[in-house]
Amino acid sequence: MSLVVMKFGGSSVGSAERIQKVAQRIVEKRQQGHQCVVVLSAMGDTTDDLIDLSQQLNKNPPAREMDMLLTTGEQVSVALMSMAIHKLGHPAISYTGWQVGMKTDEHHGRAKIKDIKPDRIHKALKEDQIVLVAGFQGTSDEGEITTLGRGGSDTTAVALAAAIQADECEIYTDVDGIYSTDPRIVKCARKLNEISYDEMLELANLGAAVLHPRAVEYAKHYQVPLVVRSSFTQNEGTYVKEEAVMEQGIVVSGIAYDKNVAKISILGVEDVPGVLATFFNALAEANVNVDIIVQSGVINGKADFSFSVTLEDKDRAIEVVEQARSKVSFDEVTSETELVKISIVGAGMVSNPGVAAKMFDVISKQNVSIKMVSTSEIKVSCVIAQKDLTEVILALHTAYGLDSQTTAFVGGPKDRR
Amino acid sequence: MSLVVMKFGGSSVGSAERIQKVAQRIVEKRQQGHQCVVVLSAMGDTTDDLIDLSQQLNKNPPAREMDMLLTTGEQVSVALMSMAIHKLGHPAISYTGWQVGMKTDEHHGRAKIKDIKPDRIHKALKEDQIVLVAGFQGTSDEGEITTLGRGGSDTTAVALAAAIQADECEIYTDVDGIYSTDPRIVKCARKLNEISYDEMLELANLGAAVLHPRAVEYAKHYQVPLVVRSSFTQNEGTYVKEEAVMEQGIVVSGIAYDKNVAKISILGVEDVPGVLATFFNALAEANVNVDIIVQSGVINGKADFSFSVTLEDKDRAIEVVEQARSKVSFDEVTSETELVKISIVGAGMVSNPGVAAKMFDVISKQNVSIKMVSTSEIKVSCVIAQKDLTEVILALHTAYGLDSQTTAFVGGPKDRR
Repeated sequence: MSLVVMKFGGSSVGSAERIQKVAQRIVEKRQQGHQCVVVLSAMGDTTDDLIDLSQQLNKNPPAREMDMLLTTGEQVSVALMSMAIHKLGHPAISYTGWQVGMKTDEHHGRAKIKDIKPDRIHKALKEDQIVLVAGFQGTSDEGEITTLGRGGSDTTAVALAAAIQADECEIYTDVDGIYSTDPRIVKCARKLNEISYDEMLELANLGAAVLHPRAVEYAKHYQVPLVVRSSFTQNEGTYVKEEAVMEQGIVVSGIAYDKNVAKISILGVEDVPGVLATFFNALAEANVNVDIIVQSGVINGKADFSFSVTLEDKDRAIEVVEQARSKVSFDEVTSETELVKISIVGAGMVSNPGVAAKMFDVISKQNVSIKMVSTSEIKVSCVIAQKDLTEVILALHTAYGLDSQTTAFVGGPKDRR
Repeated sequence: MSLVVMKFGGSSVGSAERIQKVAQRIVEKRQQGHQCVVVLSAMGDTTDDLIDLSQQLNKNPPAREMDMLLTTGEQVSVALMSMAIHKLGHPAISYTGWQVGMKTDEHHGRAKIKDIKPDRIHKALKEDQIVLVAGFQGTSDEGEITTLGRGGSDTTAVALAAAIQADECEIYTDVDGIYSTDPRIVKCARKLNEISYDEMLELANLGAAVLHPRAVEYAKHYQVPLVVRSSFTQNEGTYVKEEAVMEQGIVVSGIAYDKNVAKISILGVEDVPGVLATFFNALAEANVNVDIIVQSGVINGKADFSFSVTLEDKDRAIEVVEQARSKVSFDEVTSETELVKISIVGAGMVSNPGVAAKMFDVISKQNVSIKMVSTSEIKVSCVIAQKDLTEVILALHTAYGLDSQTTAFVGGPKDRR
């Protein structure tokens, strides 16, 4: 008998009918002899509806009150699921975040889990209950209700799995597992059987929005084995763990892309020591998150810099750079949008030279110019024009031997909590 | 500066627009120099919608899970109200039942308040906050979420008022106050300025569904001064307190009616000692609540009994009586429905003889036969045919000098929680 944490997202519990299906699935798992702790998100559009309502009353509502409001969504889900499981004849019990001792810091809307005291979960499991836990929420030491922010229910599931030393944490979602790239672009995208935490982190950060990076980090830290699978099919899903078995000849596991990229260029910067520090300290102080940084060579004592930020941060970044004129002399600051960052990810890269070179080669053969490049041990990213995204991804997918014989399963709308 | 508890029912907070209006009203109260603790019900149809959803999953859901489900409604209300008050520029903070130390027994769906530890309320009031408390809910010693049952938010408000020693507890609803009778039947019903707890209890129990009897009992026990007033108008409302000032010449304060009445008759009962006890012990054991009991004279060693029960209890009552045949001999058990119990209520009755006689006289002058009668110190009730309700109420209202010159204000749907 093993102890399993199962997490179902909002679209999996979006209606009474879907709740019934999930209830069946949970009871089947129990009947296979597993102890089940189930983490749920709010039903379908509940969160959006509550946000709409709050916006009608206050365009800038206090974060504390948003947490009071939104956490009701998950509480509704677990209560209803418990009823559906009872109807199937199995004992079940639902808990809010505070009831399972989910202690967080006091940052409303983006709280971090500090500690879990799962006494009630252990007690309920001993009584043969299926345990349902409201995801996304906790309480601070002061007894305030907090939320974990984006991907919060994934994080709840993984953190609980670590706290109760579960054998596995299953993330049920609306896709079949982790794919080698976006199946909406590449029809022959390959479903991965296994992937390492590190690869998953790179893919998650890069926009393969199935698993939230925070949840993956948590899983890696506590070595919680994860499975990502569909709540609509019985397919096997993708295992996420420390060391994934590499398939024959596959060096690149996946290709991710991110359209939320703006390129800022500072032209004709006076080349004195400390200029880079001046700019990037100022950006950091203004909470602008810089991703790729590129510096051209120095000509006549002047250099050009480029860096990438998210689209939301673009205007603020330009403002910060302009304000730095008092300290550093430069000619001009420009920006470019309609870009995309394409990244190839693979734990096998370290031991296989030439992976990055192949990427540049494939892209140039498509007559597409590369605007920025960055590399890490298991990742190479290139920023290109957004209009070239599809042809470049298709070409890379084929070039790295990722094309599958079967057509990928693509589910409904993505779960975002 | 006084400390006031304000309670708003579901229809008063049924939409974003209504929440804004109530927020304004609360802030006005605060600006008049009062400290405000506000208790809210769930928005409009929220509770019914949640019940519908649960019924789709389980026709007989566990009471514990229903409490988990339904308490979210009030949490949504207080969070939204807090946002609306913030928008008006005043600090406000919302709390669930467990956050304000609302301790109850463990009876889900009908829990009783055991204790309140309002430390957080006192602290927030000191910080000049408007305090919003989710009505209808509490937690047991085991940390389970409970609900107080029907009228729960009224009870929350009164209990909080007692615990924090508020100067007044204002119950805002969709009617102007307590009326001498149902304004939908009697257009010239009189709004009462004052009424005693005891009179209110009789009227509340008898179906004047503005204030829940449990809340009134609580208010009487802790001597909390109540005011019932409309959330839609600025009218004065009705004060409910220990000793109400009696208006000149008014002996009867109000006339209530209750259509939820069935009459059961046991005919030809063998007249031996203990027969009544046999029947009514059996009924009590079956949880059938008996209201009026009438016994006719004994003829030839046989007697007839009648008693009234609610419509829901009618069939069970007949069953229980039939089962008693083994112990008591009788000819027949019959039942009658389509009835109504009309009650005149007034603290002044004790010192004014002839009040009951006048009632019988007025009813008989309408050529209506009285099927059952019961009296208490401040009440006389007559059961008559339902078809005669309107003419009898109108006649009684005039006979006891209750007709007002103005037409009563009648609001929207009744708040039921």
